[in-house]
Amino acid sequence: MLVGKIIGTVTATRKDEALVGAKLLITQPLDMKGNEQDNPIIAVDTVGAGVGEIVLYVSGSVAPYAVRKHEVPIDAAIVGIVDRIDLMK
Amino acid sequence: MLVGKIIGTVTATRKDEALVGAKLLITQPLDMKGNEQDNPIIAVDTVGAGVGEIVLYVSGSVAPYAVRKHEVPIDAAIVGIVDRIDLMK
Amino acid sequence: MLVGKIIGTVTATRKDEALVGAKLLITQPLDMKGNEQDNPIIAVDTVGAGVGEIVLYVSGSVAPYAVRKHEVPIDAAIVGIVDRIDLMK
Amino acid sequence: MLVGKIIGTVTATRKDEALVGAKLLITQPLDMKGNEQDNPIIAVDTVGAGVGEIVLYVSGSVAPYAVRKHEVPIDAAIVGIVDRIDLMK
Amino acid sequence: MLVGKIIGTVTATRKDEALVGAKLLITQPLDMKGNEQDNPIIAVDTVGAGVGEIVLYVSGSVAPYAVRKHEVPIDAAIVGIVDRIDLMK
Repeated sequence: MLVGKIIGTVTATRKDEALVGAKLLITQPLDMKGNEQDNPIIAVDTVGAGVGEIVLYVSGSVAPYAVRKHEVPIDAAIVGIVDRIDLMK
Repeated sequence: MLVGKIIGTVTATRKDEALVGAKLLITQPLDMKGNEQDNPIIAVDTVGAGVGEIVLYVSGSVAPYAVRKHEVPIDAAIVGIVDRIDLMK
Repeated sequence: MLVGKIIGTVTATRKDEALVGAKLLITQPLDMKGNEQDNPIIAVDTVGAGVGEIVLYVSGSVAPYAVRKHEVPIDAAIVGIVDRIDLMK
Repeated sequence: MLVGKIIGTVTATRKDEALVGAKLLITQPLDMKGNEQDNPIIAVDTVGAGVGEIVLYVSGSVAPYAVRKHEVPIDAAIVGIVDRIDLMK
Repeated sequence: MLVGKIIGTVTATRKDEALVGAKLLITQPLDMKGNEQDNPIIAVDTVGAGVGEIVLYVSGSVAPYAVRKHEVPIDAAIVGIVDRIDLMK
């Protein structure tokens, strides 16, 4: 999993039926110190994440597990809201 | 998922049977400001996307879910037409 | 999917049983203008592709679908011969 | 698989139900000489790994196999504690 | 698949049960001319490969197919010993 920050939303009226009702959040990957790294991706929210929050997200074919539906064409999903990051000194 | 722009089509007469009838669209990945990033990929259309449109697409082994067929050898599929991108100020 | 050019073959006598008879083609990824990009990969042929041909190939866990066998340990497969690439003007 | 060093932990109170009780470890990928490479990822522990330990971890959709639960949305898991790395001279 | 050279071994006493008995080989990816590219990965051997040999390996969730066991948390496996690489002139 990676840590990211929700920086926006994507709206798509015409879309795969399985995505109807899905909240599509623009997620900026962060390193462990909170710096941006790589380009944002679009992840489906499953934990009530909002813009500005720091989240934990999964990528790839495990993403559909987060929405508890089979065979949904999504490849990224938010699976947690990050409360704390503890780095070894 | 990523956002991309449809910039062309690929024609392949000799191909896997499961791909017969599939529309193969050249998709240029974009960042959230509309700039091109990385190289284009070929995605199967499932939402009636056309050249010039901004789309949402999935990569990897969830792509077959978008075509509602099992065991189709595709690794990218267009799952939505992007209407709006709202970035946090 | 990506577009690539077949630039050679790999021979492996000692190999996974499921690969016996598989044609292992060295595939050079190309961009949409025909320039080489990234390093070649080895893909299993399923459409009768030959050295010098421009092909469409899939990567990842959907590759076994192309050989119509379950649980074959391959992660790339050629699924079409490219006839034409039309890029938007 | 890759070798990494556990450099911290992530706490997420609000999260996917399937992740309740999972230990989320910040894992810094290492090369075979122990140098850091790429950015840290978050992996679920399944072998009792602790901060400071050198581990073996998997990425992608095989990660749920490590937690012996089906359909858990995790894409990285620690599967071993590294005792020794022997490099060819 | 990629071509790599076995450059060492990893020993992990405490590990996922499904990995007991697995030979963990450090595999250096090579380009088609035999030059090293990218960082080594750890792959499970299934063909009797030894240090110094040039192999063909798969990555991702098809790797468990090579060990003929279901739900084994491995993401790379050696599936062949390379005898010859023929590059187009």
